[in-house]
Amino acid sequence: MQVSPVLHGYFRSSCSWRVRIAFALKGIEYDQVAVNLIKDGGQQLAVIQYIDETRPGPRLLPADPKARAQVRMISDLIASGIQPLQNLSVLQKIGAEKLPWAQHFISRGFQALEPILKQTAGKYCVGDEISMADICLVPQVYNAERFKVDVGQYPTIKRLNETLAEIEAFKLSHPSRQPDTPADLQA
Amino acid sequence: MQVSPVLHGYFRSSCSWRVRIAFALKGIEYDQVAVNLIKDGGQQLAVIQYIDETRPGPRLLPADPKARAQVRMISDLIASGIQPLQNLSVLQKIGAEKLPWAQHFISRGFQALEPILKQTAGKYCVGDEISMADICLVPQVYNAERFKVDVGQYPTIKRLNETLAEIEAFKLSHPSRQPDTPADLQA
Repeated sequence: MQVSPVLHGYFRSSCSWRVRIAFALKGIEYDQVAVNLIKDGGQQLAVIQYIDETRPGPRLLPADPKARAQVRMISDLIASGIQPLQNLSVLQKIGAEKLPWAQHFISRGFQALEPILKQTAGKYCVGDEISMADICLVPQVYNAERFKVDVGQYPTIKRLNETLAEIEAFKLSHPSRQPDTPADLQA
Repeated sequence: MQVSPVLHGYFRSSCSWRVRIAFALKGIEYDQVAVNLIKDGGQQLAVIQYIDETRPGPRLLPADPKARAQVRMISDLIASGIQPLQNLSVLQKIGAEKLPWAQHFISRGFQALEPILKQTAGKYCVGDEISMADICLVPQVYNAERFKVDVGQYPTIKRLNETLAEIEAFKLSHPSRQPDTPADLQA
């Protein structure tokens, strides 16, 4: 028997959301503890890969080494190349100029990501199976929209996000439907 | 027969250096092409894990799932939580205040890293085998020193860095010994 994991998270954190999607895809029951102070960073990719290696359910990293490398490359581009530059603690330090700052780094990241996804994507980010790359993409697009980046400029990113948004694991884990979501942001 | 990989890198980039260490540890011959424009981000972790999964030589991720998760957590903390905030393109955008900015985010990261390493470290970052975590640590400590962060405040980080600096793979891959190292920075 395995004890239910406890996710210490925050409804709007990309990092928490990634783990919620992974749990939902794997069908893992978990408890949530809301924390207001967010420790950001990509550590959640370690959690996702640990879950993938130790729990049954759909694979979040494909078996083929080349496809695995593509999944990790896309995930790292988002989790190291974009998300850390627009997270809460960085924006607080930037202050008044935070909107153009976030837009700059998200746009620069999406300009790198779009041609990669154009090559790797099938129905999802890498081929036709959902992977860790999809888990990283959806929260990043949500952030792009919050910061008023025109996602329509990136047709592959836009199409993948729309496809993924229809999947139950992504719906259930959405920031608008968490125990700590403020009333005015609930879906 | 496998063709030698070509590393498009920059002598001082942490990302390039991580891959150089991995190649040296695995005993992989490679060609280097120097590029002055650096595309930062953690994508190099995807390269390292791909090498580890497809090439012989010492394992850069341990076999045990818990130890693997520790290696990935430490690697991600550095590659997503610290390095992206002090890379060249971010500091260029920060401008005059770049030194205190870099010091702030490196210090904050090391304050999170030190107690983790205190728990996981043996001779190296996780137990007594070299791993991807060590590959991430050494370039980050080099950057901390460049930005005049007092690494002596973090005794575990300092001790691990000193141990790793003596290893041939880390020496050969050092920024002071690359084909594109400017003459005044050569060892």
